[in-house]
Amino acid sequence: MTRKLAAEFIGTAFLLVGVVGSGIMALDLAAGNTGVALLANAIATGCVLYVGITVLGPISGAHFNPAVTLAFLLRREIVSVEAFAFIVVQVAGGVIGVWLAHCMFDLPILQTGTTARTGINLWVAETVAAFGLVFVILGGLRHRPEAVPTIVALYITGAYWFTASTSFANPAVTIARGLSDTFAGIDPEHVPVFIICQLVGAILAVALGRAMFQQPVTANEPGR
Amino acid sequence: MTRKLAAEFIGTAFLLVGVVGSGIMALDLAAGNTGVALLANAIATGCVLYVGITVLGPISGAHFNPAVTLAFLLRREIVSVEAFAFIVVQVAGGVIGVWLAHCMFDLPILQTGTTARTGINLWVAETVAAFGLVFVILGGLRHRPEAVPTIVALYITGAYWFTASTSFANPAVTIARGLSDTFAGIDPEHVPVFIICQLVGAILAVALGRAMFQQPVTANEPGR
Amino acid sequence: MTRKLAAEFIGTAFLLVGVVGSGIMALDLAAGNTGVALLANAIATGCVLYVGITVLGPISGAHFNPAVTLAFLLRREIVSVEAFAFIVVQVAGGVIGVWLAHCMFDLPILQTGTTARTGINLWVAETVAAFGLVFVILGGLRHRPEAVPTIVALYITGAYWFTASTSFANPAVTIARGLSDTFAGIDPEHVPVFIICQLVGAILAVALGRAMFQQPVTANEPGR
Amino acid sequence: MTRKLAAEFIGTAFLLVGVVGSGIMALDLAAGNTGVALLANAIATGCVLYVGITVLGPISGAHFNPAVTLAFLLRREIVSVEAFAFIVVQVAGGVIGVWLAHCMFDLPILQTGTTARTGINLWVAETVAAFGLVFVILGGLRHRPEAVPTIVALYITGAYWFTASTSFANPAVTIARGLSDTFAGIDPEHVPVFIICQLVGAILAVALGRAMFQQPVTANEPGR
Repeated sequence: MTRKLAAEFIGTAFLLVGVVGSGIMALDLAAGNTGVALLANAIATGCVLYVGITVLGPISGAHFNPAVTLAFLLRREIVSVEAFAFIVVQVAGGVIGVWLAHCMFDLPILQTGTTARTGINLWVAETVAAFGLVFVILGGLRHRPEAVPTIVALYITGAYWFTASTSFANPAVTIARGLSDTFAGIDPEHVPVFIICQLVGAILAVALGRAMFQQPVTANEPGR
Repeated sequence: MTRKLAAEFIGTAFLLVGVVGSGIMALDLAAGNTGVALLANAIATGCVLYVGITVLGPISGAHFNPAVTLAFLLRREIVSVEAFAFIVVQVAGGVIGVWLAHCMFDLPILQTGTTARTGINLWVAETVAAFGLVFVILGGLRHRPEAVPTIVALYITGAYWFTASTSFANPAVTIARGLSDTFAGIDPEHVPVFIICQLVGAILAVALGRAMFQQPVTANEPGR
Repeated sequence: MTRKLAAEFIGTAFLLVGVVGSGIMALDLAAGNTGVALLANAIATGCVLYVGITVLGPISGAHFNPAVTLAFLLRREIVSVEAFAFIVVQVAGGVIGVWLAHCMFDLPILQTGTTARTGINLWVAETVAAFGLVFVILGGLRHRPEAVPTIVALYITGAYWFTASTSFANPAVTIARGLSDTFAGIDPEHVPVFIICQLVGAILAVALGRAMFQQPVTANEPGR
Repeated sequence: MTRKLAAEFIGTAFLLVGVVGSGIMALDLAAGNTGVALLANAIATGCVLYVGITVLGPISGAHFNPAVTLAFLLRREIVSVEAFAFIVVQVAGGVIGVWLAHCMFDLPILQTGTTARTGINLWVAETVAAFGLVFVILGGLRHRPEAVPTIVALYITGAYWFTASTSFANPAVTIARGLSDTFAGIDPEHVPVFIICQLVGAILAVALGRAMFQQPVTANEPGR
């Protein structure tokens, strides 16, 4: 259990170092071209997710995300006490990760986000983002478990671009980014609604995942 | 059957969210550098294709594309009724995906494309694009089925750049993009010829694929 | 034999469509930032190589490159007659690929390159580029044959950047690019020396590959 | 033994050609957008790492990095004499790689770095970078050895962005980059502290790796 919690802590901290650190570097270097900055930010985040999930997945499952832990709780694949502990260390790890990123980039450690991220369209985007994330994880676990690190990494790299909110899709990440006034930051006032949307997305994905991925499969064509 | 149709619907909707959503975001952020925008658009599309095909492939074959369904019909690997149903839900899914992208980016839901995409050279490009797509799918299924998600994703990411039309290569995608006046849009008047070219490309690929991939292989060097 | 030659023809044509087509598109869109253009060009080329080698490798070995064919000839893994036929169709396929790219982008079909690519440093670069390519192919075939498509694709994507010549590394590609006055073009007068350097690099790689990859391995640490 | 040392020499030389060569090309082409330059530099480096580790890993373990060799020495997976020899050839290979890059780009062979890379925040960054690198290698070897080339490549591609120092994370690379006054260069005066931080990071990773990856695993969810 300790080792599992350590894995969730380390993995989520590493994820936030990746998201916030690469955001700072990217905005710094991109000479005003935010497209270049987001490209670097998205690629670096994908790299971190692939590596973290591959290395720590066999220990804790590599959730790094309370919405994912909620999904497994709903599926009764994790017990409540453990799920609660996972979520606590995910949030703690995320915060430490943000602070470490600030430290490495010589910025004040304690910050508060000021980037407004609110509005119905962004709430729809976060719901879609978290729905998609949990859905593809469930599908991947069902059909090709060894590909889950790649699935999550590429899903998020893509979702930075195809959701208007750049796909936070993770309550621990959202809270932690509320403590950063950098490229990846978010005004803390806008955090709660994001989290609600993410949890709703995860719940919907569990429901649809049950319908789509529970029964055994008789494929049409092999592999495609 | 219901589950297969649901997979085709979800997958094609997700594909269009990816293509149109990332196009909107990319053009928005790229500060006038369309090269950066297309790079983001191409990478995001590749990510979505890899994820969607890996997760839904074992259910429906993950065609997400009437030209691919036509290819399997010609190869008698899907029956007519099912092929017809696939194509209907692919188009419906694509349209829903476009509307969801508009919704997430706070744009009018109902739009009509205005980007002119016509001319003999683009028709050649679409024929080549769809030919290549179906050809590499058939080759991948023959030689390395587990790599098909990667093959399709990388083929399309590359083809955004090496075909002058940015490789629509998919009638459902083409119709759906006719309903968007964003980076990925197309004037609906130019849709029909694109579709004809795509179907011709698919038919040619089935013919060549029969010659190239039907017989057993005695390779020269292993793996290369 | 016919099928092998067809595979070499199609694969090399596809490669040149990828290299030249993406170069045209990239320069066109990159708003004067050649870095963005080369990034797109390098990524698209990597995509094409992965796909082409995966799909056609089991038929002909997917050389698509006279320097690679020469390497296998020196290793007596292909007979002279077949090697000669391979090289002929590789060059023919490359030329057709360039012309098809010109056609898709509505450019004059028949062109002559005008980009000067000459000088000792570029000759060193081409020798290094071809040496590295053949060396990693031989190592990949020895240690992890199923990874050869990825190895070649990533090697070339990287080598676009780390060799001063952008790593032609392929006589068929070099000849074909001599027929294009676009981003990927080369002055035909500078083609012969490039080819000599590439063949020298390939021969050196065969020699070093014999020393490094022939004996059975007793690894230090597994996998790394 | 000779073959192992040759593998470490070739691999580290190739790595430095990749890092320094792509840095020169990238800065040259990026039209003042350092973000584009670092993106190309990071992608090219990842490509080189994947290829080099895949091809040479089965011979020497593909350390290419004294900090990694130190980690295996601490774990008693390599003997002192061999470790010392590895480190010598890694440094020699790195220097030769830098000189080869200068040669290919027609620059003076002998240079001295002038880029200041110093300050507590960069020292923290290098410690984190090397800690993370060794930690993910140990985790990868424990849980999925065949993925180690991908893990290392993606870790470094990401770490270019999420560490303020662009993640040298390698004493041989640091020394060699001290001999280049290009994009990837570093003032030699700032090299020693970087190396100390890298070794500290590696030692910490071995300690944490022992706690996290030694015991057998009873995973929560398969694959994630």
